[in-house]
Amino acid sequence: MTLRMYDWHNGPYPARVRIALAEKDLQSHVQFVSVNLRKGEHKTEEFRAKNYSGTLPVLELDDGTLIAECTAITEYLDTLDGQPTLTGRTPREKGVIHMMSRRAELEVLDAISIYFHHATPGLGPHVEVYQNREWGLYQRDKAVRGMRYFDGVLRGQSFVAGEDFSMADIALIGGMIFAAMLEVQVPVECDALVSWYARMWERPSVQNWQAMSA
Amino acid sequence: MTLRMYDWHNGPYPARVRIALAEKDLQSHVQFVSVNLRKGEHKTEEFRAKNYSGTLPVLELDDGTLIAECTAITEYLDTLDGQPTLTGRTPREKGVIHMMSRRAELEVLDAISIYFHHATPGLGPHVEVYQNREWGLYQRDKAVRGMRYFDGVLRGQSFVAGEDFSMADIALIGGMIFAAMLEVQVPVECDALVSWYARMWERPSVQNWQAMSA
Ligand SMILES: N[C@@H](CCC(=O)N[C@@H](CS)C(=O)NCC(=O)O)C(=O)O
Ligand SMILES: N[C@@H](CCC(=O)N[C@@H](CS)C(=O)NCC(=O)O)C(=O)O
Repeated sequence: MTLRMYDWHNGPYPARVRIALAEKDLQSHVQFVSVNLRKGEHKTEEFRAKNYSGTLPVLELDDGTLIAECTAITEYLDTLDGQPTLTGRTPREKGVIHMMSRRAELEVLDAISIYFHHATPGLGPHVEVYQNREWGLYQRDKAVRGMRYFDGVLRGQSFVAGEDFSMADIALIGGMIFAAMLEVQVPVECDALVSWYARMWERPSVQNWQAMSA
Repeated sequence: MTLRMYDWHNGPYPARVRIALAEKDLQSHVQFVSVNLRKGEHKTEEFRAKNYSGTLPVLELDDGTLIAECTAITEYLDTLDGQPTLTGRTPREKGVIHMMSRRAELEVLDAISIYFHHATPGLGPHVEVYQNREWGLYQRDKAVRGMRYFDGVLRGQSFVAGEDFSMADIALIGGMIFAAMLEVQVPVECDALVSWYARMWERPSVQNWQAMSA
């Protein structure tokens, strides 16, 4: 099996899939194809034929099937061996993990991403052809509130979706990576979030996320 | 088994879960609890303790577990009987269905929702405390482009994620329902989308979505 991953070396969303690949020990099956975000290569007609939304990462299977969206890619990778460890085994686990993963996107990661593309120079003027600064700043504030929310969650449990590491932790790690890149500060009172994040960095999958691709 | 669903009679997102319930023949297990969106009952502290994001629907299980987010709820309901029919059986099916479902949200349903909350009176002035009209209009145009994209997809295949009905069709149905409510027109040239949508309305699950709850 050879998987091809359209990727960018320091993208917080590609990071999610790289972490999942390492958790599932699948990295040796993947050939990384770099798509230069700063040059806007993800907005070309050619790339949009692979992913209409024009975002990374995208996974291409042996048979040519294209899978975009981190959650979808993670679902694929995690169920390949019939032994899901990231997306849940029981219906209840699946439901809770999908909820918390989506919530980590909505309330932190996607909010930081909107801030980046709309209220900072983002990928540069030739890529960010439309910006809505007010919306970007609103989303930054939403992300900081989201951090407070997850801090509360992590006071009561060890991981984002309960007592096991999952795709939901990976989604929030993506948000924390993106926030750090943009120097969006984690509120000082968020000890539980900070100590969870330190624990996440003890995992080899997280330590090596930037080293994985070329 | 009794499931409790926090719901609103004509919400396009609750519609997605009602359609999934009917497809899985689970409606007799559900007790619907109406949360009045027009009164902003979903933004109260009490409701946000159930779903931090302050949105409907939310499913509550017998053991008190709360599952928000349509995709997460659908994943739960569809896997309860060990015979998934909406979210895919193989890793490849799961990946493609999750991708297309998320894409239907990003490019149509969520875009129409942002238009509703930001560039129309939405749920009224006491609920829509912050509006960004320019962003709302931008998202409406994005949704119309998204319809053209899905029209193209449906020229090549019978359903949104391939040759079988799935959660991805339900997500796009939610977008079409919301668009119709707001009189956002489907571009005239989108025959394949229009004929797919007519086929969707032949399904009892879709026909009865508004009748299901009180
Ligand atoms: N919903 C997508 C979001 C992916 C995303 O936004 N990726 C970033 C790379 S870190 C991107 O492609 N941004 C480029 C852009 O939006 O112009 C997912 O979960 O994969
Ligand atoms: N991502 C959520 C979105 C749900 C959503 O936006 N629901 C609407 C009801 S149709 C809502 O609660 N809107 C109220 C608001 O945003 O104020 C999901 O998939 O469940």
